[in-house]
Amino acid sequence: MKELSCTMIIFGSTGDLTQRKLIPAIHQLQYNGYLPDAFRVVAIGRRELSQQEYLENLFEAMVKHTKLLIDEYSWLKISERITYYKMDLTDLEDYKGLKEFLDGNDFPLNKLLYLAIAPELFSVVVQGLDENRILEEKGNWIRLVLEKPFGKDLESAKSLNENILSAFREDQIFRIDHYLGKEMIQNITMLRFQNAIFEPLWNHRYIDNIQICVAEMEGVGSRAQYYDHTGALRDMVQNHLLQTLAIAAMDPPKTMNADHVRDAKVKLLSQLGYFTEETSKSDILFGQYEGYQNEKDVLDDSDTETFVAMKVNIHNERWKGVPFYLATGKKLPNKSAQVTVEFKPPDQCLQMNENESCQVFALSPGSEVNVLEIKIQPEEGISLRLNTKKPSITGETVVAKMEYCQSCKNSYNSPDAYEKLLLDVMRGDSTRFTRWDELALSWHFIDSIHKSQVPRYTYPQGETGPKQAEELLKRDNRKWWHRFPVNPGATK
Amino acid sequence: MKELSCTMIIFGSTGDLTQRKLIPAIHQLQYNGYLPDAFRVVAIGRRELSQQEYLENLFEAMVKHTKLLIDEYSWLKISERITYYKMDLTDLEDYKGLKEFLDGNDFPLNKLLYLAIAPELFSVVVQGLDENRILEEKGNWIRLVLEKPFGKDLESAKSLNENILSAFREDQIFRIDHYLGKEMIQNITMLRFQNAIFEPLWNHRYIDNIQICVAEMEGVGSRAQYYDHTGALRDMVQNHLLQTLAIAAMDPPKTMNADHVRDAKVKLLSQLGYFTEETSKSDILFGQYEGYQNEKDVLDDSDTETFVAMKVNIHNERWKGVPFYLATGKKLPNKSAQVTVEFKPPDQCLQMNENESCQVFALSPGSEVNVLEIKIQPEEGISLRLNTKKPSITGETVVAKMEYCQSCKNSYNSPDAYEKLLLDVMRGDSTRFTRWDELALSWHFIDSIHKSQVPRYTYPQGETGPKQAEELLKRDNRKWWHRFPVNPGATK
Repeated sequence: MKELSCTMIIFGSTGDLTQRKLIPAIHQLQYNGYLPDAFRVVAIGRRELSQQEYLENLFEAMVKHTKLLIDEYSWLKISERITYYKMDLTDLEDYKGLKEFLDGNDFPLNKLLYLAIAPELFSVVVQGLDENRILEEKGNWIRLVLEKPFGKDLESAKSLNENILSAFREDQIFRIDHYLGKEMIQNITMLRFQNAIFEPLWNHRYIDNIQICVAEMEGVGSRAQYYDHTGALRDMVQNHLLQTLAIAAMDPPKTMNADHVRDAKVKLLSQLGYFTEETSKSDILFGQYEGYQNEKDVLDDSDTETFVAMKVNIHNERWKGVPFYLATGKKLPNKSAQVTVEFKPPDQCLQMNENESCQVFALSPGSEVNVLEIKIQPEEGISLRLNTKKPSITGETVVAKMEYCQSCKNSYNSPDAYEKLLLDVMRGDSTRFTRWDELALSWHFIDSIHKSQVPRYTYPQGETGPKQAEELLKRDNRKWWHRFPVNPGATK
Repeated sequence: MKELSCTMIIFGSTGDLTQRKLIPAIHQLQYNGYLPDAFRVVAIGRRELSQQEYLENLFEAMVKHTKLLIDEYSWLKISERITYYKMDLTDLEDYKGLKEFLDGNDFPLNKLLYLAIAPELFSVVVQGLDENRILEEKGNWIRLVLEKPFGKDLESAKSLNENILSAFREDQIFRIDHYLGKEMIQNITMLRFQNAIFEPLWNHRYIDNIQICVAEMEGVGSRAQYYDHTGALRDMVQNHLLQTLAIAAMDPPKTMNADHVRDAKVKLLSQLGYFTEETSKSDILFGQYEGYQNEKDVLDDSDTETFVAMKVNIHNERWKGVPFYLATGKKLPNKSAQVTVEFKPPDQCLQMNENESCQVFALSPGSEVNVLEIKIQPEEGISLRLNTKKPSITGETVVAKMEYCQSCKNSYNSPDAYEKLLLDVMRGDSTRFTRWDELALSWHFIDSIHKSQVPRYTYPQGETGPKQAEELLKRDNRKWWHRFPVNPGATK
């Protein structure tokens, strides 16, 4: 465990992310015995708090915001590992003190720097750390963890990145996309490459289209100051949905190591079909839930999209003619995410004409095309729609579902994404983090959308998004398969 | 329903088959409303019985031998449709009377002749019917239903067949293999050709081997007079197992009509690799359960096999190098049947060597090859073994099972094979009956086995057959996947 030992320095330690995700993840790592013995947390905040007060606030917030069962002993152990440190991140003078504080204590030498702060502060923090030689490698490693947003377009992302690269190497930077820590997102790779039966089918010869849907029930909540300038396209599509798409669609990586996997994703992202003015009108649509403009901190005439549906083409041999339909939105009937793979119909002939050429292809009445659903949340698992013989004296077929439900198991307790991702950082495994070239390509793709051309609609809260999202598939003689945006069960 | 109307003439109407299968099936057809209005049964027997006595015997036997819930009204309706007719099948004079009896009553004109008798009697019955012009087509059709055994080798089957063909056309002959009436056997065709995802995988590139196992718990019972001269190879392999193999392995039929499906099976059966003296020693083995020789009507020194395991090769492009392992036997731990498809490992590289060529292929620790099991009985359904990510903080894989269990459903009531097959005969649908060329090829294959060369072993009752059956796969670095012959659960 020597390599893992480190001092984790959290910038923004009184904020939401620290309370809701980081400390709970550390608790779980402690509880499950994954933390190295030599592990300390320096929790940096602007507020004047005693160590005692900080810990009490933290504990209260954890109880309030998470469903975590807090283990008394683990909490005690964590408390001993955490030191609250007050400083003003915008005051470059304060970094001197931080340097002295770090040097003056017998903390582990490896450093895990976690920027749980607004991106506007990144550059000053990087400057402060750099100028005060806090980034000198005294141990084996220094790693920097960043949270989204990584810019708001390619240009701003580049500038942010250059700023960070002035003090860090790319291999030191861990850009978190917590979607990559989700069990079933990781499982897509396993399913595709640890099973012989999927890869032969995983191309345009057998797949008709792939749908990636991420639904949120919540509205903008308390995030409007950020969200109203961002919108669903940048907040969700640019990162979570495109990453999911890349993992679902990439060619087999050379090996499963971090760089090979990310090489494969980069290749795929470089093959996305960019939008034109024309396709920005036809292949993408925005929605805004009714009442959004009345939410706290939202501009009265805001046209920020809280819903996006789009058709994405991939320009390579594997996916020739196979559209990927993406959709995500807020104030939808449920919180759910899934990747749905719709296969083409079988090409078995059912009936010939007199010239012995096939007249009726494929599916008997009662049959449907095969559909594989990879369920990311809330349920985790896969299901496969198959045509089987209806158990009866007749020869009819009926659609049956083969199910594997991982989260249905009693013994099952899905680790939180942050737990895994933090441990990944300590281990130096960057497979599940976004490399700069992936990020750049994602922004390049998003930037190709002519936002002013995209049709905009409103939709009622709690329903399945703008009905025009259905049209996007209907005109291709297709339909959304799962729950959202069309969810008969929830809308009835 | 006009076409279906018929007079069903059962030869051997006081026998086991009539009591256990035919009349129960007619009861179910009546109960479920599938019988045509014009439907009469002439139940022919040698014994002097009044109509009343015959029906009482029948009812008693049905109650005793079947688990059927007899519906009072349906039984009443059937009773009205059945007429007992006494005659001696071996006395050609008696057929004159039968002719008069049939002509003298206002019975439906279509005739369904069911030979529920020993094959030794076939020729005299055919002669009697033919000479007395009972086979003159007065209605739309006359059809003949035959039960196994269809001979004991190709020669005897040919002679039997020629005898029948002297009075019937091939398209009038319905050779019952009740396995073809089983739900999941029929479902194999549906699964393969109504789903797009199986056919692309259904060949030597992706499949490593296929296993077909049929286990019986019962011993020879009261059938020794027949069985001791027959053995498992002829009683089970020649018909049920080879038919199952043909359906699992055939090329896609031109269409799903009866002749196209049987053409596809014939083609497959013609590609079976015949046994040589050498492979009769190495690729097949016989077993006899301990105590078999003491069973009633079994010869003291009988070497009749009650167990067969064999490796079958198919000489075509699709199955190049893919062995089919067949096994069946009596006095095994359970009654079960399944087709198990073992896929090859995936060819994803896990680790490269320094020259950038792959060093470690395929499966991570914890992963196994994919296995698709088609469960024929007692459970009906399919299950698929997949490798998935172990739900945990680590990246290990674990084998998960996707299940579709048809017979587990509450509402499910699998129709008996005979119900479907009888209705098929009335409808003139011969898809699920064995055509002569299929039968001839099956016998040709079975006859290629040099029985004197085949190793013979005994095995304890209730265990999983001779342990040498495991060796048959072990030497190919393979194993039996399911329940039988290796069933750790049942043998512990």
